[in-house]
Amino acid sequence: MEWNLNHKILIVGLGLMGGSYAQALKRLGFMVEAIDVRPEGIAYATEHGIIDRGYTEVTKEAVESADVVIFSLYPGVFKDWIKKYQGYFHPGTILTDVTGVKSCVVYDIQAMLRPDVEFIAAHPMAGREVYGVEHSDDRIFRDANYIVTPTERNTPDGVEWCKRLGRFLGFRRISVLSPEEHDRVIGFVSQLTHVIAVSLMTCNDYRELAAYTGDSFRDLTRIARINENMWSELFLLNKPVLLEQMDLFMGELAEIRTLMEQNDVEGLKEKMRLSTARRAYFDK
Amino acid sequence: MEWNLNHKILIVGLGLMGGSYAQALKRLGFMVEAIDVRPEGIAYATEHGIIDRGYTEVTKEAVESADVVIFSLYPGVFKDWIKKYQGYFHPGTILTDVTGVKSCVVYDIQAMLRPDVEFIAAHPMAGREVYGVEHSDDRIFRDANYIVTPTERNTPDGVEWCKRLGRFLGFRRISVLSPEEHDRVIGFVSQLTHVIAVSLMTCNDYRELAAYTGDSFRDLTRIARINENMWSELFLLNKPVLLEQMDLFMGELAEIRTLMEQNDVEGLKEKMRLSTARRAYFDK
Repeated sequence: MEWNLNHKILIVGLGLMGGSYAQALKRLGFMVEAIDVRPEGIAYATEHGIIDRGYTEVTKEAVESADVVIFSLYPGVFKDWIKKYQGYFHPGTILTDVTGVKSCVVYDIQAMLRPDVEFIAAHPMAGREVYGVEHSDDRIFRDANYIVTPTERNTPDGVEWCKRLGRFLGFRRISVLSPEEHDRVIGFVSQLTHVIAVSLMTCNDYRELAAYTGDSFRDLTRIARINENMWSELFLLNKPVLLEQMDLFMGELAEIRTLMEQNDVEGLKEKMRLSTARRAYFDK
Repeated sequence: MEWNLNHKILIVGLGLMGGSYAQALKRLGFMVEAIDVRPEGIAYATEHGIIDRGYTEVTKEAVESADVVIFSLYPGVFKDWIKKYQGYFHPGTILTDVTGVKSCVVYDIQAMLRPDVEFIAAHPMAGREVYGVEHSDDRIFRDANYIVTPTERNTPDGVEWCKRLGRFLGFRRISVLSPEEHDRVIGFVSQLTHVIAVSLMTCNDYRELAAYTGDSFRDLTRIARINENMWSELFLLNKPVLLEQMDLFMGELAEIRTLMEQNDVEGLKEKMRLSTARRAYFDK
């Protein structure tokens, strides 16, 4: 599979992420169509030139004319879609996705998929605290990471194709990880941080403290505004990894608690020096 | 005590915060002097017009000519300073500070202080991840909160004087809280968030993950670069409050962990909905 500017791209699930993909790909000159159950979303995207054409139902005609299909659906819905409609793809179609967990999705999809189409999974690590195609904006990709997660069933061409998609979208850094490595990374840098932000907000009702809040608190809880349908599914689909990360983190909190109980100033300073040194690796 | 543009202001401890105070107050036309043990800091501040005059030692001459003295010292050093040098103040001098914990500082200072000077405490909730007068910048006050923490020993005039100081410095919001209320607020919005950021960095060595890190992780750990001498002291001085906040937070994490263990999707969604609703109170 090679990129060809005449290829028609179909986006299945036109929300914030699908819409942002559409914007970036139309800018490059591709014909972009989309399927979504929300008529308002399809109408908005057509009127604003985000897509060339939209459908609110899955039709053979819409699917079979696509050379590239990008799935932006919740994992469960994604699997059902493939089961139900994969007969519509024309041979040689290439499929990719934007799903935030990989091990539990990629292998299942590939196992049930027709042998004459290829599914190469990817995770665009970008987002906003709002959703819907109405808020889509391909600038969210600019400083972000894009991770391609191939398996043994993928071809070298498929992997190259998907890396180039990441570059087309404008991502700053393109990486390749196995689905398992991806899920381990995500469990820490994304899921654990969301668990923490939610816990900070729910552990007590501090609304009267809003007036006294500094930027550190706002930064830590920006992601506490969370899409509960998507994230509850993502958490449970990566359960073993996330539980392990939570245990590590909770163990560390307990250690710092003990240092405080014992007035162990040197122990606390040691933790802070380590924290300061490690944080330097994460500077942009 | 009323504000008078001819008053001479002395800053004791010329770091990031003291230097930023000096910039703001000199801009308004006050004569600003400073005492600091670091000759390089005093030299830098004098050369760059941040202060009018600097001293590297405490002299009777420097202290007795000041109408306002602003302490930007670690709590322990602050108390020692007052014990040793309070004889130098001229009667009617007004003192304030920038200390990040209050109950354990304010009462002690006021109890040992001469009756003819007034100490009115305040906490400027601003900062940067770098320190030293060389990084001082009074723009850090612009969107920040300033909390005045009077006790029964303070006069109404003293409280008004200190609120006006907050306005002079350019703070967005000026509040008045008791030292105890202040420490409870700070334990949550500032200290707990720093404990979390440090724990995230120290719970495992994830430096190889830096490449895959999104903005949420960077936001959550910005404050993980931390001044260990200052923060270990602040944590322990507010120990009962901080331990209580940590326990609440750890309890909440454990609850979310249980919901995940039990695949309780509805329970997880409920937490996320609550988190989303509460976070809205903290929007600027």
